[in-house]
Formats: sequence, C-alpha cells, structure tokens
Amino acid sequence: MAEQKATNVHWHEGDITREHRSRLLGHKGATLWFTGLSGSGKSTVAVELEGRLNELGVLSYRLDGDNVRLGINRNLGFSAEDRTENIRRIGEIAKLFADSGVIALSSFISPYAADRNQVRELHEAAGMDFIEVFVDCSLEAAESRDPKGLYKKARAGEIKNFTGIDDPYESPWKPEIHLHSDQQSLTEEVDMILGELRERGIINA
Amino acid sequence: MAEQKATNVHWHEGDITREHRSRLLGHKGATLWFTGLSGSGKSTVAVELEGRLNELGVLSYRLDGDNVRLGINRNLGFSAEDRTENIRRIGEIAKLFADSGVIALSSFISPYAADRNQVRELHEAAGMDFIEVFVDCSLEAAESRDPKGLYKKARAGEIKNFTGIDDPYESPWKPEIHLHSDQQSLTEEVDMILGELRERGIINA
Repeated sequence: MAEQKATNVHWHEGDITREHRSRLLGHKGATLWFTGLSGSGKSTVAVELEGRLNELGVLSYRLDGDNVRLGINRNLGFSAEDRTENIRRIGEIAKLFADSGVIALSSFISPYAADRNQVRELHEAAGMDFIEVFVDCSLEAAESRDPKGLYKKARAGEIKNFTGIDDPYESPWKPEIHLHSDQQSLTEEVDMILGELRERGIINA
Repeated sequence: MAEQKATNVHWHEGDITREHRSRLLGHKGATLWFTGLSGSGKSTVAVELEGRLNELGVLSYRLDGDNVRLGINRNLGFSAEDRTENIRRIGEIAKLFADSGVIALSSFISPYAADRNQVRELHEAAGMDFIEVFVDCSLEAAESRDPKGLYKKARAGEIKNFTGIDDPYESPWKPEIHLHSDQQSLTEEVDMILGELRERGIINA
C-alpha cells in the first residue's frame, strides 16, 4: 500500500447524499415494481428493459426469485405471513437501491394490493419514485405459456395456493404503467416504461 | 409517452451481467465490512471513505443502523438469534449491492466471528470481493469517546449484553485491513482502504 504523504485530504462537505450519487451516475434512482400473474411476462420485460437501460448508460439491478428467494429470503416459506414478509423485505431492499441511485427492477407476482401499497408508502415517505408496472395478461394466456410448468402442477393439485388458480391476484388500482403483455410487443412495453422514466426526470438518456 | 416507431430494438446480447455493470460504472462492486467496538470509529471511517470515493467517481453506499435497523431489520431485536439474523440479512444485502456494481460499506459492530465468516463465504462463493476492515481500538479509547452514551448506560446496567462490557467482541483473525483508530489519522485509515481497493483492481481511480 502506498505510504500516506498528503494530509488534510478529508472530505469536507458533510455526508454524501442521494443527490451526490445521482450526479455521479447521471440519473436518479427509482423502484420499478413489476407485478402480474406467473407467466405474464414480468421477467421478460424486466430483462429487456435492463438491457436497454444499460445501452443508455443507466445503472439498473434486477431483484427476482433467483437472487432474493434463494438469498436473503431463503428463510421464508409460502404461508400468508411469510408472503407478506417476503414482499416487505423486497420493498425495503428496492428502496435501498433506489436511494443508492440505482434503478431497482423488482419482479415478483406480489398478488396482494396491501403488500404492494405498503412498499409504495415506504418509498413515497422517503421522497423516492415508486413506479408500479402492472404486467396485465389474461389467465388463459399466462396459463397457455406456463414457462415453468407451474399452472399444470397447480391444476393437478400439486401446488396449493397458486395465484390465479386457488389464490387471488389483486390487480393494481392505479398502476403508473399498465402493460398488456398479451397484446403489446416487448419493444412497445419497454418504450412505455422508458417514456415514463424520462417524463419523471429519472433518466435523461 | 412517445409513440413506438422503431421495431426490433431489442437487447440481443442476453442477460446483463456483473461485468456489464462494472463497465458502465468504471469500477467493480465489492463489500467493505467494517467491524469493531461501539465508538471505535467505524462510521467515521465509512463516511470519510464514502466522500473520497465520490470525489473519485466511484459509487458506494453505506449500510448502517439508520437505514437497516430502522428498515428491513425493524422486526429484529437483540436476542442471540436476532443478532445473527441481523448480520445474515445485512450480508445478503451487501452482496446484492456488490453484485450490482456498487461498493457496499457495511458498518455494524458485528462482534461474532462466525457471523462475519458466513457473510465472507457468501461473497466468496459468488466470486465477489469481501474486504473485512477491522477498526481496532482499545476498549478504554472507545469508552472514553462514547459518542452515544451507550457505555455509560451499559456500565449502569441499563443496557444488557453490550459488546465489550458484558458481551464479547471476537476480533477478526485475518482481516484484509487492520486499522488502529486510536493511533492512526482518518486520512491514513482511508488511504489504506483506497490502496487495497486499487491493489485488488476494484477501482482504478
């Protein structure tokens, strides 16, 4: 390690804030909360958006089952209590990312309006952008895709409390962005989201 | 929102990876894990480092009691189990930040070696840099500072299981960085850390 020569090279301007980080990155942080049925296309849109944002020089990070359910939430099951705690924790993590300047892309079914609204309030109380993206899709279309074979298992009774089959999906009342993944192209969907991010001044690119 | 005109503007290169994010930011993500007694100066060093990194154009984010204990870990108390779960969750969050390209600055007493080592293993298994920063300081020096009046309360028996008084602090065996906050200047401490980040190729600035 280099020997310390210079002295008094302290940072004098006080704590680094959200604004400092935004200036460094050239964009603001925010949470994009994708919600919709299993198979509605949440992850597909999030992955495509992530690529487009990267091309625009915007830092985003996806929170999904792979890095959350197998990580911080590995000690949670699928009881009603655990599902609520699952969404609460994801909401808190998304908020930390948004605060850090990153655009958090949260992609979970998150079927209950009350849980989603709690995450919204958490962000809004801290002056952070929470953008609910309803990936709307008919149950028929989602079930016919069934990318993970989960609907089949739910219909066979092998999975209980499956959203859309024997557990409700509560549609957002006023999502900031309402996509229709069974009618729109992926490009259209992503462009709608980028438009919203520009309109809100979150990105300029 | 702008009408979609162009088609086929999909992102074709597959999922965005850690490497894409590093390229965008110009540095790698990592976790700097500050550990030491209450009053040892963990936060002081982390805040100063955060400012210096910002000047260098490096994105970092502090995880501390303010944004973690009052947020995602608000449902945890101070039992042995809860303390372990507290550190586990912080470790998982730091790992997500490191993966996103951000330099996570985690600043908690984290007195138990087993808990810290679990976080280390979590990072190393995923090929991420975990840098343990031992903010070493005599109990006498930490207690004489007592910035939050906690030692006084612990000595008076108003706080139980206080690290250094009636609960052990297990010093790191092989910390990547060993600071002596009662003997070094803040500038020296921060320069040691920056030196380590440069040596590891995490930052080039």
